[in-house]
Amino acid sequence: MKKKLRLGLIGSGFMGKTHVFGFAAAQRVFDLPYEVELACIADVTMAQAEAARAALGFQNATDDWRQMVDDPSLDVIDITAPNALHKDMALAAIAAGKHVYCEKPLAPLSADAREMAEAAERAGIKTQVGFNYLCNPMLSLAREMIAAGELGEIRGYRGLHAEDYMADANGQFTFRHDPAGGGALADIGSHALATAEFLLGPITRVFGDCITVIGSRPDGKGGTRTVETDDVGRAFLRFENGASGSIEGNWIATGRKMQHDFEVYGTKGALSFSQERFNELHFFSTGDAKGRQGFRRIEAGPDHSPYGRFCVAPGHQLGFNDLKAIEVAGYLEAIAGVRPEPFNFRAGLRIQTLIETIQKSSRSGTWLAVDGA
Amino acid sequence: MKKKLRLGLIGSGFMGKTHVFGFAAAQRVFDLPYEVELACIADVTMAQAEAARAALGFQNATDDWRQMVDDPSLDVIDITAPNALHKDMALAAIAAGKHVYCEKPLAPLSADAREMAEAAERAGIKTQVGFNYLCNPMLSLAREMIAAGELGEIRGYRGLHAEDYMADANGQFTFRHDPAGGGALADIGSHALATAEFLLGPITRVFGDCITVIGSRPDGKGGTRTVETDDVGRAFLRFENGASGSIEGNWIATGRKMQHDFEVYGTKGALSFSQERFNELHFFSTGDAKGRQGFRRIEAGPDHSPYGRFCVAPGHQLGFNDLKAIEVAGYLEAIAGVRPEPFNFRAGLRIQTLIETIQKSSRSGTWLAVDGA
Amino acid sequence: MKKKLRLGLIGSGFMGKTHVFGFAAAQRVFDLPYEVELACIADVTMAQAEAARAALGFQNATDDWRQMVDDPSLDVIDITAPNALHKDMALAAIAAGKHVYCEKPLAPLSADAREMAEAAERAGIKTQVGFNYLCNPMLSLAREMIAAGELGEIRGYRGLHAEDYMADANGQFTFRHDPAGGGALADIGSHALATAEFLLGPITRVFGDCITVIGSRPDGKGGTRTVETDDVGRAFLRFENGASGSIEGNWIATGRKMQHDFEVYGTKGALSFSQERFNELHFFSTGDAKGRQGFRRIEAGPDHSPYGRFCVAPGHQLGFNDLKAIEVAGYLEAIAGVRPEPFNFRAGLRIQTLIETIQKSSRSGTWLAVDGA
Amino acid sequence: MKKKLRLGLIGSGFMGKTHVFGFAAAQRVFDLPYEVELACIADVTMAQAEAARAALGFQNATDDWRQMVDDPSLDVIDITAPNALHKDMALAAIAAGKHVYCEKPLAPLSADAREMAEAAERAGIKTQVGFNYLCNPMLSLAREMIAAGELGEIRGYRGLHAEDYMADANGQFTFRHDPAGGGALADIGSHALATAEFLLGPITRVFGDCITVIGSRPDGKGGTRTVETDDVGRAFLRFENGASGSIEGNWIATGRKMQHDFEVYGTKGALSFSQERFNELHFFSTGDAKGRQGFRRIEAGPDHSPYGRFCVAPGHQLGFNDLKAIEVAGYLEAIAGVRPEPFNFRAGLRIQTLIETIQKSSRSGTWLAVDGA
Repeated sequence: MKKKLRLGLIGSGFMGKTHVFGFAAAQRVFDLPYEVELACIADVTMAQAEAARAALGFQNATDDWRQMVDDPSLDVIDITAPNALHKDMALAAIAAGKHVYCEKPLAPLSADAREMAEAAERAGIKTQVGFNYLCNPMLSLAREMIAAGELGEIRGYRGLHAEDYMADANGQFTFRHDPAGGGALADIGSHALATAEFLLGPITRVFGDCITVIGSRPDGKGGTRTVETDDVGRAFLRFENGASGSIEGNWIATGRKMQHDFEVYGTKGALSFSQERFNELHFFSTGDAKGRQGFRRIEAGPDHSPYGRFCVAPGHQLGFNDLKAIEVAGYLEAIAGVRPEPFNFRAGLRIQTLIETIQKSSRSGTWLAVDGA
Repeated sequence: MKKKLRLGLIGSGFMGKTHVFGFAAAQRVFDLPYEVELACIADVTMAQAEAARAALGFQNATDDWRQMVDDPSLDVIDITAPNALHKDMALAAIAAGKHVYCEKPLAPLSADAREMAEAAERAGIKTQVGFNYLCNPMLSLAREMIAAGELGEIRGYRGLHAEDYMADANGQFTFRHDPAGGGALADIGSHALATAEFLLGPITRVFGDCITVIGSRPDGKGGTRTVETDDVGRAFLRFENGASGSIEGNWIATGRKMQHDFEVYGTKGALSFSQERFNELHFFSTGDAKGRQGFRRIEAGPDHSPYGRFCVAPGHQLGFNDLKAIEVAGYLEAIAGVRPEPFNFRAGLRIQTLIETIQKSSRSGTWLAVDGA
Repeated sequence: MKKKLRLGLIGSGFMGKTHVFGFAAAQRVFDLPYEVELACIADVTMAQAEAARAALGFQNATDDWRQMVDDPSLDVIDITAPNALHKDMALAAIAAGKHVYCEKPLAPLSADAREMAEAAERAGIKTQVGFNYLCNPMLSLAREMIAAGELGEIRGYRGLHAEDYMADANGQFTFRHDPAGGGALADIGSHALATAEFLLGPITRVFGDCITVIGSRPDGKGGTRTVETDDVGRAFLRFENGASGSIEGNWIATGRKMQHDFEVYGTKGALSFSQERFNELHFFSTGDAKGRQGFRRIEAGPDHSPYGRFCVAPGHQLGFNDLKAIEVAGYLEAIAGVRPEPFNFRAGLRIQTLIETIQKSSRSGTWLAVDGA
Repeated sequence: MKKKLRLGLIGSGFMGKTHVFGFAAAQRVFDLPYEVELACIADVTMAQAEAARAALGFQNATDDWRQMVDDPSLDVIDITAPNALHKDMALAAIAAGKHVYCEKPLAPLSADAREMAEAAERAGIKTQVGFNYLCNPMLSLAREMIAAGELGEIRGYRGLHAEDYMADANGQFTFRHDPAGGGALADIGSHALATAEFLLGPITRVFGDCITVIGSRPDGKGGTRTVETDDVGRAFLRFENGASGSIEGNWIATGRKMQHDFEVYGTKGALSFSQERFNELHFFSTGDAKGRQGFRRIEAGPDHSPYGRFCVAPGHQLGFNDLKAIEVAGYLEAIAGVRPEPFNFRAGLRIQTLIETIQKSSRSGTWLAVDGA
């Protein structure tokens, strides 16, 4: 009989639903140390919470997240509320001794993220931030190949996360445009940064180039509101391992829906990847025979853990929601102490630090060292 | 409060598990007319059944599928047992008034499939066969585009389902090599046929070319066994709509894991698709401006129902298991009478008829008409 | 000082021009045994011939190809006139002791092609038919890899040559629709057949499926003319080496401009190729490490002779006209006795025999053996 | 009768040969205002020059380029000698009133390039620098589409030119590593810069990031030599039209042979291109119907001038040497006054200015304005 783990979820929007998919699928797909009970869901109004409870299968609903967080019967608090609320919620949950799972970004500002990470560490609870693209078996494969020296000594990197969901200048001003923590670099460039460090290790220095292209947006009340956050955030990078590189976060890249791409090259090989076809990793090896060299399209399969949990045959492909299930599974194993936290609050803080350093560098027009690499 | 639908599952292997994933996900992702209860799971031994019960979350377990089928508390019987058993199980379930969901192939022989289809129709229960590739939103899009005339009058078709899981001549003889119902054409060529008729409508005449490449295989007891089923099954096709085409089923296609591809062209446009990248559909339109024409890579998104149920943003991609959830959802809606059965036993029979006609044509070396088109 | 070879060209249309490009480029790019002089060009009227002479740089022009063919100062006659004239021209040139280079098809009917091939062999002159796609270094690479056993024992083949230049039903009736020798299979399916035998060796048996889709076309005089030739010509194939396969020639494949593709698989590997990206060959090897297997995109480079003659750096890419230069170079070397004829009249006859056997099989609806394999 | 233009070529290496191919092909393919005579070829020794004369078909050979430049019978001097000699040669040719065609880079230092450009302009002769990638019909198409507003207002750009020909740390020190004018940014990043301005117009500000990865190389005499030039040269860009972007030049990009890529996006569309498949341009238009949008693979064809000069059918593809023929044709037309110089010395100077500004910015770690935009 598995130990039960009782979950309290805050927020029932897109990401709340995705988390529930993740918990449900993870328990079917993986052999996990816990049986997760969907104990309670909190939302702004009781009506919303109750509707979500029924739709998603929670036992209880509440419009008072603070009360839920203090409920001694719950083990894990999962936060998918707007970014600005993450800190208060997480600190309260930590204070109540709960494990805390928080959607990215951990907090709009790194100072807040730091406070959260430190509180979690002091309390000894287990945390997780939702950087789900890292949960792709092909990214794990890429990291393993790099670590095993299959590319030789790493020399360079190009990363990108480009979409076009903010390309329309008539799109309304939202919390994503908030000067505190908003912008393309923070919103999706953060994924590019997470992937870069996941693969190559710490970034030590950055030069930022953050640009506001759409200077004002409708405020939804008939007027317009000035936008100060970036639509494109680029950076040149130096890594601790000696490599250099660049990343870009871009939410006005017309035509692009999920261009989370990278190319990394070393003395003996190279990898090329696009999230547009995220069940593939392209590998070039200088060890291949003369006249037979080329980028090799490796398709995800049971050789690439944990793909085999989802399907015993290669080439069938995982979907976006499967990545969330892998994320959940890793977190539950970390709670059980079976493995380290895959991407804890400290890691979430790290991303915020990188973002802020790049933004600061962009403003000053100078290279900056990244703290705490 | 949703009506409950109590499920009895036979079989707990790869496909049994995939079905459970499908039911679980479908209920999270869709707003379905029923709440499905995982009531009972049957397997060959009680130990297997009990282990599966615990792992997959069923209420009860049994080693007696006949008893389960007769349990008046159950509404739906889901069959993922070996092909040779499908018929007895389905007929018993139909006799007990249950809705029946059966993995493909419906039965190794079309005569058996016919008996099953007719029994189901007489009983008035709802049936489903698991042709999950058809559940891809991009295939629905392709069908819609063809039906709407976006390609003009359809002239030709090329279909393929090639993998390499039987390419190793040292792979053991299995039930898939059984002369009654085995072979590449039946096992995966069936998908190519299903897709062809899904898109273009009835096939009226066929010429088959079925080839055994690996003539004997290890029997697992130190000897070898002669293989008479095909490793490659090809056919030329005529469609009722006037188009001609070809398909191929191939399980010795070295290097290919999921080459379920098609290309269809008409007087005004063409579509090209590969299951290797199944979140994309490539569309050529003669209506595009001169000098600007080309195959357009359409990426799956919320515009392509029911993608939006899984994810609100385009380009994030569905996985293989998501297709199963769509299949389950369609079946549950059909049970509720909301829509026609997506792929019922009659449709399953149709595929078996096509397969047998192609095999017969291959043996006789002549074109044959397909019955009951 | 190189020996001179004096060329007489018949025809100054698209192909005539392409041949001149080929001769000119071949002499710059290769170190050839001859210096080719553009001695004389023949066309239907003196005005056309003279205009072509001036534009293309020939020494003389004539409207009397018979006279030119008999000119003792000429060494090679190059025929790019309409197909129906190939035979008379070639036989006259052979009778005059000239080497003969003839555009494909050698002749509309295999009986004529046979007469031409036999006459050439009796006369001991050197012949060439223009199957330029075979001159691609990546096809030579494919052939070498197959011959060297890099794919193991060959099991299967899929070939295709699809374009859309006859997709418009309002396109006028031309010599390409002539019942004697016309149709998609003859016009471009011939390329698919040539590639199939180039790679795998002789085809021994065929089953044809030749279809007329556009049954009548404008005759250019205000009326229409019935079309009896195929718009799509398909065939199932058996090869002498034991492999089976299929090819298709298709000139109504909307959206396709140059889909001369093939996929070949053996016990140890596979190749995939598309003329749409003809500087690439995709290679899968079962010898690659577990978890690292995949189709490898080999880009043409100096490792793939004679690419290096055109460019010392890989990845720069050859163009269509460069393939013609390679064809010319091979022919000139064959004339000099340095190498066998790359694709002589006997080989051209072979293609016509395959085409006619497939057409005959299509009419009879039965498998047929191919003569003289 | 066409006017003759007598050519004197300096240098008979890779680029010298490519130029001869270009002149030869251009005259066959285009209807040009001149007949070019290969009058004289100069190389370092008489033996080399004479060998090149015979191989390439020049009338005369010399080991004294100064004498050749002064020969009153010559009209055009074509310089493919080492970069360091370009200036003296060009100035002498200009002084002698010759038109001058010079391989890229115009000169290692922009000060020299300026002197050359100004001398040419004062003398009123016509000049050309060999930026052949710009001669691709698909790049002309891209520029036309941008100019015509098919992408709307341009917002951003990413350019790249990556190869791996210097990836081997044991590769010898060459003139390409010379501190004056060497490095990846100058050698191939120059192409990325040329393409960026070709498409979007003037770059006004840059921030450079130029990195030496392989710090020393064998000197060919048993020792090593320190390398100070960059192996990777990156830059952030601002364009006069308001767009921002980035480029990278990289000659240690393992696995890449010709990754001259760009992506440009505007308010209404986007283009994506890779020189690895340079006969294709991928176009996204927000004007396409909902649910039917996607990047469209436009294949080069007769609609994209001057492709039709080479081949009357689309999809047959141009090769690298064909681009050189287009370059030559454009220059000859410019000499005849039919069109402006496609890429004259002033344009070559511009590229050197950009390179030096980026290098200077990299050293200072600050944004710099580009002179003379």
